[in-house]
Amino acid sequence: MNKQTLFRQIKNKSSFLCVGLDPDLNKLPRHLLKEADPMFEFNKQIIDSTADFAVAYKSNLAFYEVLGPKGWESLQKTLDYIPREIFTIADAKRGDIGNTANLYAKTFFETMDFDAVTLAPYMGKDSIMPFLEFRGKWAILLALTSNKGSADFQLLELHSDKPLYQEVIEKSKTWGSDENTMYVIGATVGEKIQTARQLVPEHFFLVPGVGAQGGDLEEVAKYGMNSSCGLLVNSSRGIIYASSNADFGKAAQVEAQKMQQEMQQYLEKYCG
Amino acid sequence: MNKQTLFRQIKNKSSFLCVGLDPDLNKLPRHLLKEADPMFEFNKQIIDSTADFAVAYKSNLAFYEVLGPKGWESLQKTLDYIPREIFTIADAKRGDIGNTANLYAKTFFETMDFDAVTLAPYMGKDSIMPFLEFRGKWAILLALTSNKGSADFQLLELHSDKPLYQEVIEKSKTWGSDENTMYVIGATVGEKIQTARQLVPEHFFLVPGVGAQGGDLEEVAKYGMNSSCGLLVNSSRGIIYASSNADFGKAAQVEAQKMQQEMQQYLEKYCG
Repeated sequence: MNKQTLFRQIKNKSSFLCVGLDPDLNKLPRHLLKEADPMFEFNKQIIDSTADFAVAYKSNLAFYEVLGPKGWESLQKTLDYIPREIFTIADAKRGDIGNTANLYAKTFFETMDFDAVTLAPYMGKDSIMPFLEFRGKWAILLALTSNKGSADFQLLELHSDKPLYQEVIEKSKTWGSDENTMYVIGATVGEKIQTARQLVPEHFFLVPGVGAQGGDLEEVAKYGMNSSCGLLVNSSRGIIYASSNADFGKAAQVEAQKMQQEMQQYLEKYCG
Repeated sequence: MNKQTLFRQIKNKSSFLCVGLDPDLNKLPRHLLKEADPMFEFNKQIIDSTADFAVAYKSNLAFYEVLGPKGWESLQKTLDYIPREIFTIADAKRGDIGNTANLYAKTFFETMDFDAVTLAPYMGKDSIMPFLEFRGKWAILLALTSNKGSADFQLLELHSDKPLYQEVIEKSKTWGSDENTMYVIGATVGEKIQTARQLVPEHFFLVPGVGAQGGDLEEVAKYGMNSSCGLLVNSSRGIIYASSNADFGKAAQVEAQKMQQEMQQYLEKYCG
C-alpha cells in the first residue's frame, strides 16, 4: 500500500488507529478455547468489530510463534481475513545481515503479504535495505520505543551530542524515503516525538504505548502529526481485552470507536 | 545446558565448532527437492556428517520462516534430531518489550527446546531479562556483528568515549552472568575481539564470519580464547554447501573435520 492510499483511508475513516492483534491464549474469553483455532476466532471477531474504526492492524509475531507452526497458520489466516484496504503490519522486530534480511523480507512480503514489517536497526544499513526493495512495502524501524529499557541504549548520547535514536533516524532516512520507511516512536516519550518529527517531517510514525503503557493521545497528535497525518497509533490490550466475556467483540468495538472519535478531533485540530 | 557441560564437550571433541544449519532451498542439492521435507533431509545428513566435530548447531530462523508453518515444522524436526549433548542455538535476533520478550523466551525454550537464542539489545534490559529466567538456558546478545552495517551504530562512540557495542557488553553483563549470557562478536573485527574479551573475561562469544565472510580463525582464538575456551565459532556456508551434489554430506564432513583439526591446535596453544 502506498502512502497516498494510506492517507486516503485515514481521511475516509477519520482515524489513525492501529489495532494490535496480539492474542494471548491465557487471556482469551474462555468460550473460544473450544474452537479449533481460538486465536483466529478471536482475531476474526476483533477485526469484524473494529474494521470501521481502524486503518491498520499490527500482529506481534511473539503471540503466534509461541504456538509453533500452528501459530503461524493462525497468523496467515488472520492476515487473509483483514480487509485489503486496511494497512497490515508484522510486528516482528527482525534484523540480520543482508542475505538473511532478504529472506525475512520474503517471509513477510511474499510468503505472507503484509504491507509492513518492524525492524531493529542495531545491525545497520545492510540489515534494512532488502526490505526497501519491495515496491509498495514498508520498513518500520525501531527508533525510540515505549519501554523502560529504551533508556539503556536508545537515549545514550553520542559524541555528536545526539542520542542514539536520533542518529538512527538521521542515518536511516537516507536509505529509503517517506514512501517506504516509518519509525517506531513510543507515546510515552512526550516531547521527543516533536524532536523526531523535526528530523523527518514527512515520515509516518508507528506509535505504541497509548493506553496500557500510559501515553497521552492528544500529546502524540499535537507533537507528531503532519499534513499527511503521519501517525499510526497502536492500541492492543485496551481494545482487544476490553471484555473477557462473550461480548468481547462489542466491547472492542466500543473502545475502538471511542479512540476513533478522539482521533477525529485531533485530525481536525492538528492535521493540515 | 550449563557452562561446565559445554566446556566438557569442547574438551572431549577438541573443537569449538558451531555449524550453521541455514538451508536455502535454492542451494540444496537437486535430488533432495523430491523429498517431502527437503530442508529437514538436508539438515539430517549435515548433522549425521558433522556431529563428531561440532559442539553446537545454530539455526537461523529466517531460512525456516520463509516457508511459513512448514518451515517451522522443519525447524522443530531438525532440533529434535540433534543429539542431546550438542548445544543448540536459535539464531532469531529477537528483541521486544518485557511481556512480549517473555513469549519469545517461551517459544524458544519451551515450545521448542533450544539451549540458547540470539537477541538484539536495542530495546534494553527488559527485552533481555525474561530469557535469563530460564535455568540452563542462554541469551546470546548481539554486540559487534560481522557485517558492514555494524559500523553504522555499533561502532559509534558515545560521550563516554566507548563505542556502543562496548556499552552493550558492559551494561548487560550485570543483567545475568557468564552462566547464562553470551555475546556475538564477529570474526571480521580483528583486535576488537580482544577488547571485548577484556570487558568480559569469563563469557562465551558466539563468533560468526569465519570463512565466507573473511574472518581468520587463529586470530579469533588468539584474541578471544579464555580458560574455558569461551568461543563458539560458527561456520555455515563453508560447511553445508561444500558440495552441491549427492556427496554433500561427505563434503561437509571433510570441511567440519578440517576446522576441528585446526581448532584442536588453537585449544592446545591458547586455552589454559
